Order: sequence, then C-alpha cells, then structure tokens
Amino acid sequence: MKINGRHYRTIFPDADGGAVLVIDQTRLPFAFELQRLATVGDAARAIRTMVVRGAPLIGVTAAYGLALAMREDASTASIERAAATLAATRPTAINLRWALDRTAALLRATPEAEREAVAFTEASRIADEDAANCRSIGEHGARLLSDIAARKSGPVNVLTHCNAGWLATVDWGTALAPIYVAHDAGVPIHVWVDETRPRNQGAALTAFELNAHGVPHTVIADNAGGHLLQHGEVDICIVGSDRTTASGDVCNKIGTYLKALAAHDNRVPFYAALPFSTIDWTLNDGVAEIPIEERDGREVTHLTGRTDEGDFATVQVVSPGSPVANPAFDVTPARLVTGIITERGVAEPSTEGLLSLYPERRRAA
Amino acid sequence: MKINGRHYRTIFPDADGGAVLVIDQTRLPFAFELQRLATVGDAARAIRTMVVRGAPLIGVTAAYGLALAMREDASTASIERAAATLAATRPTAINLRWALDRTAALLRATPEAEREAVAFTEASRIADEDAANCRSIGEHGARLLSDIAARKSGPVNVLTHCNAGWLATVDWGTALAPIYVAHDAGVPIHVWVDETRPRNQGAALTAFELNAHGVPHTVIADNAGGHLLQHGEVDICIVGSDRTTASGDVCNKIGTYLKALAAHDNRVPFYAALPFSTIDWTLNDGVAEIPIEERDGREVTHLTGRTDEGDFATVQVVSPGSPVANPAFDVTPARLVTGIITERGVAEPSTEGLLSLYPERRRAA
Repeated sequence: MKINGRHYRTIFPDADGGAVLVIDQTRLPFAFELQRLATVGDAARAIRTMVVRGAPLIGVTAAYGLALAMREDASTASIERAAATLAATRPTAINLRWALDRTAALLRATPEAEREAVAFTEASRIADEDAANCRSIGEHGARLLSDIAARKSGPVNVLTHCNAGWLATVDWGTALAPIYVAHDAGVPIHVWVDETRPRNQGAALTAFELNAHGVPHTVIADNAGGHLLQHGEVDICIVGSDRTTASGDVCNKIGTYLKALAAHDNRVPFYAALPFSTIDWTLNDGVAEIPIEERDGREVTHLTGRTDEGDFATVQVVSPGSPVANPAFDVTPARLVTGIITERGVAEPSTEGLLSLYPERRRAA
Repeated sequence: MKINGRHYRTIFPDADGGAVLVIDQTRLPFAFELQRLATVGDAARAIRTMVVRGAPLIGVTAAYGLALAMREDASTASIERAAATLAATRPTAINLRWALDRTAALLRATPEAEREAVAFTEASRIADEDAANCRSIGEHGARLLSDIAARKSGPVNVLTHCNAGWLATVDWGTALAPIYVAHDAGVPIHVWVDETRPRNQGAALTAFELNAHGVPHTVIADNAGGHLLQHGEVDICIVGSDRTTASGDVCNKIGTYLKALAAHDNRVPFYAALPFSTIDWTLNDGVAEIPIEERDGREVTHLTGRTDEGDFATVQVVSPGSPVANPAFDVTPARLVTGIITERGVAEPSTEGLLSLYPERRRAA
C-alpha cells in the first residue's frame, strides 16, 4: 500500500541483497522509519519487540530470518538453531511455525552451498504468496460489504479490533483487505477502530493505515464497541486471527471475544479474515489448546506517545505498586463466528466448512 | 477510608464552614491533593471536569453546590439557576438530579434567611446517608463473597470495572464496599481491576484504593476480562451503576455491558451494587431511554501520566488526523444481571425484584 504516494511492502530485501528492510511499527504513527535486519538475531528481536507484528508478517519475517542465518552459517545445525530461536519469539501465532517448518524442510533437502540463495528465494516467494492471498481475501470479503451496501443507505459500518491491515501482512492485510477493495470499488465504508489496549495497534496502526488510504473511520476505546453494536451503529465486524483451529475457533488479539459476544447479542455478523497459513489443522478446541502469550506488564502500566512539543515520552498510568497481568490473545469460539474469509472464499466456522475450502486437508486427515 | 493512616471522606465541609473540600481525583494516584470549592461554579466545574466523579459522590457534590449558591444568593431564582447549572454538568447519572430535586424542594419550602444553613445541613445529611447506605451495601454484598469462599479454596476472584469504590461515593463505595467488608472480616479476596479506558479510573483509582487498603488485586486491560472469565479465573463480577431502571437495566461506565456478556457466557454471576438514589423509577428500557454522555475525544487521543523523572506529561496516542468517538456509559440489560445489591439487600433485576425491596414505590406507582 502507499505511504506519501510511494508503494511499500512491510518487508522487502535490501537493494544490495545483504539484508532485509522492515517498517518499524513501534515508531508509527508518529514516525515512518525503516529498520535493517542483517542477522537472524535481528529478525528474532524485531519479532519479539514487535517492530514487526501481525501473524502473516511475522511468518514472512521468520522465513527471512532463516535466510539471514544461512548467510552466516549454512550448516544443518544452523538451520535447527535458527528455527528454534525464531519459533521461541512469539508462542501464539501459528504462521510463524508454518513459515519456519516450510522453509527449514526445503533447506534440509538443499545442498549446503545453495541454502542461502534458496532460503532468500523461498522467503520472497512466501511474501509474494501472502500479498496475493491477502488480495484474494479482500475480494471475497468485499462482496460481503457490497451486499450490505445494497441493503442500506449511508456507509457500511465495519468494526475491527487490533491491526489486521497491510501492516500486519506483507500487503493489503487480512481484516482490512475487504475494506480496501470495497472502498477502492466505490462502496461507501466507515470503520470503527478499536484502540486495542494495551499496545494500541488500532489507534496507532489501523487509524494510520486507513487515514493514509482515505478510508473514513473513527477511533474508539475498546470499551465502546458493545454500546455501538447495541445501537445499530455497526453492520459487520471483521477481525484477523493469529491462529484458527480446524473447528473454526478464532484466536486473535485480546478483547476480540468480547466484541464477538456483543455482535452475537445484537445479531450483527462477525467474520475473521485469514490466510490458510493461520489455520492449525491439529487443534479442535481453541480455548483449551491454544497457548496464550503473557507479555510484559509494562505494556499495561506505561504508555508511549508524542507530547504537544513533538517529543516522545513514556508515562506511567497504573497506580504505583499494583500488580498487572497482560494476556495478549483470547479465543472466540466458532459458535460466535459468522464466517471465515480466506483466500479461497468464505467458509462456515466448522471443520466441515473449512474442509470444504481445503479438500486436500480432508485427504490428509 | 484511610489514606496514610488518616480517615478521609471524599467530600467534607471546610473547618471554618466557608467552603467544601474534595479530594482531587484527576491527580490520583500520583498526588493526593484536596481542592476547595467555594462557589456553585466551583462545584459545577469539579463535577464537569471529574475532579469528583462517581454517581453517589456527584449527587452529594451537587447538594453542597446548592448550599454554596445559597451562601451567595438565597433567592428562589438562585435555587433554580444553581440547580439548572449543576444538573447540566453530567447527563447520565441520576443521583445528581435526585440530590438536586431533594435539596431544591426543601429549600423552596424554607424561608430565605434560613436557606444557607438548611442547605448545608441537608447536604451533610445526604453525605452521611450515602456513607451509611454504602456500608449496608458492603454488608449485603459481603455475604455473596463469603458464600463463594465457603465453596472453594484460594481467594474469591472478583472482577470490577471502572471505580465504584469509596472514591466514587462519600465512603466505602458501592461495588467495592462488599470487598472491603469481606476483606476486613478475613475472607480471602483478589480483585481483577479493569483499566477502564479512556479515563483509566480502574488503573488509577480502584488500584490506588485497593492498594491503600491492602486488598490483593491485579490490573488488566479492559480487553482481558473475557479471557479470564473463559478460563475460570473470575468467581463473581461486581460493578457500580450511574442509573438503573425500574426494570433492572444497569447503566454504568462504557464497557460494562461487554463484561456482563462474558460473565453470562461463562455462567459467572454478575452483580451491580448501588444505593436507592441510583434507581430511576420512571424508566423501563435502559438501552432506549437513558441518555449516554458523549465526552471530549481528547480523553481518547491523549493520556496523562507520570514520567520516570516524576513529572506529569500528556502524550498523544491516537494517529494524528483520525476522528474519535467517546461515549461514556453503556447499558447492561437486566437479563445479563444476576442481582442488584442495594442498602436494603439483594434484589432480582426486575421491576418485581426491586419493588420487593422498595415496597413504598409500589404504592407510588
């Protein structure tokens, strides 16, 4: 997508091929800066500190991380070491492990001398596939939005949580891709953007993206969504996912479950948009089986933003001495999900629904 | 309740009787400062800017505001002018109007020369009654907590939203009163404290209160409650209310409805604790009938806290140029409420349930 008229992806190889460049998402929305990842350690740190975030993007970053490791040491031991380091950065998103498994398997079957080149090519292929998949998600999801537009006057009001836009992927996004495709096609859209505490990816990233693309939107506290749903101000909810079970349970940023409950209570459709790589075909009970990352309490107690003077400042907002808990994701049971939008179409949130889009998994099962 | 070993109420007359002192709640938790209200304008400003907040406390502040108006001008026109000014400060909390109606009616029936003294006496009486009512709410609610404690090992995990503690009332609190009473009686309690964006009353005030009183607690982002409820980490939810309909619909701080949905989905009891003055006997449909205050968007876009150097700083956290909406309350329908804890006991959330505690209203109806 475009920043100041220039097209960017969130991750791309350096011009001299010696490193990978990423947009530093911890500096947005106030500063647009690229960060150079030259080693597997750089890639792991970028994922852990959320310089890059979003399930699809951390998968691609991990694949490039393996390529950077191959540049330093192309041994099989190095493949295993780098894969383990990268896998340990974030426990919940399944795309990370999917991209590592795919790239590592290919590298193990490749002669040592060719591993660096093969790894970079594979990482770029994963990136290209992700961009194409997100574009397809956008096209399938946009039909849901135009259907609503045809039934009402005024804009289609979409509520989203966290950032599942192009910044969370290589390009286009997952939850926001249908919005971009529909908006570009002239469908009137307005997006309610959940702030998404504690890291404020909605207020910082989704609002930035939508503003840059000219999509009408309004930022709200996470607490406000239920009230808006109750009063008919939301036509559809669309969120991303960090891991989705074979049975259609959707693990996504903490707080998603609360919005799904409110959508269900007010008979508003609730969709998750995700590429196939987010589906964990080994799991059937998301609440019981998906590991939920517990992050540093300082993300809750302290907040960084820009002062009126233009400086960055970090302030404490929680009463000193009070303990804090910070689970990063929750699970929305399939019973609260209207449908799952993937690159192949819209599925019912059930094993049968997902298998109907991915029949090759039926054979695998 | 006590601050550094000294007992305070949130509002009390100045030693020389010439003004009213309040705890400045916009400075907590980092600074404990009293603010002096000398005129009705001071009282109105204190309510509007949330120097004082919490439904019961703003009712008492409004009554003192009328008394301060009488000191300046004890005419009947002054009563009406002051009542109108004070009523306009916050539209949702019904206690404000209840306290104004009660005090203004008394003053209209009082000779002009006695109005100042009568108004101060009446405001103090309302304050004393509120403290006594909150203490009774605490005793009724504490029984619910000891019942849970008797059925499990480990602490009773209570989830609360916003601040409905002693800072929201004259003393004791509403939702927190049962916690204080049970804790003081030796019942093991642990409180999950919702941060409560956008004004962070949970992180700033509830955490401060519980910490000062030594009640174990953990602050969480508002988004986290659903996940905790899903995983059995919450035994009971207790919140306050700014207005409750005769039919048991509970209007409270924005985001309360989302927690009630999650409690209901996980079969965890959800209670509202409130004095009789919070019940609006004229309303039966909270979602349709209760006016919801829309506050300044800057409460969402900007956040004030303490830097590591000990200064206060205000930082912008929302992407520049993005519009913001800021509804301050939502309504939890009675069907999601397990019970309503008042100074007279615990009622079913229905007209019949509330009338059984307040039979004199049956005669009035």
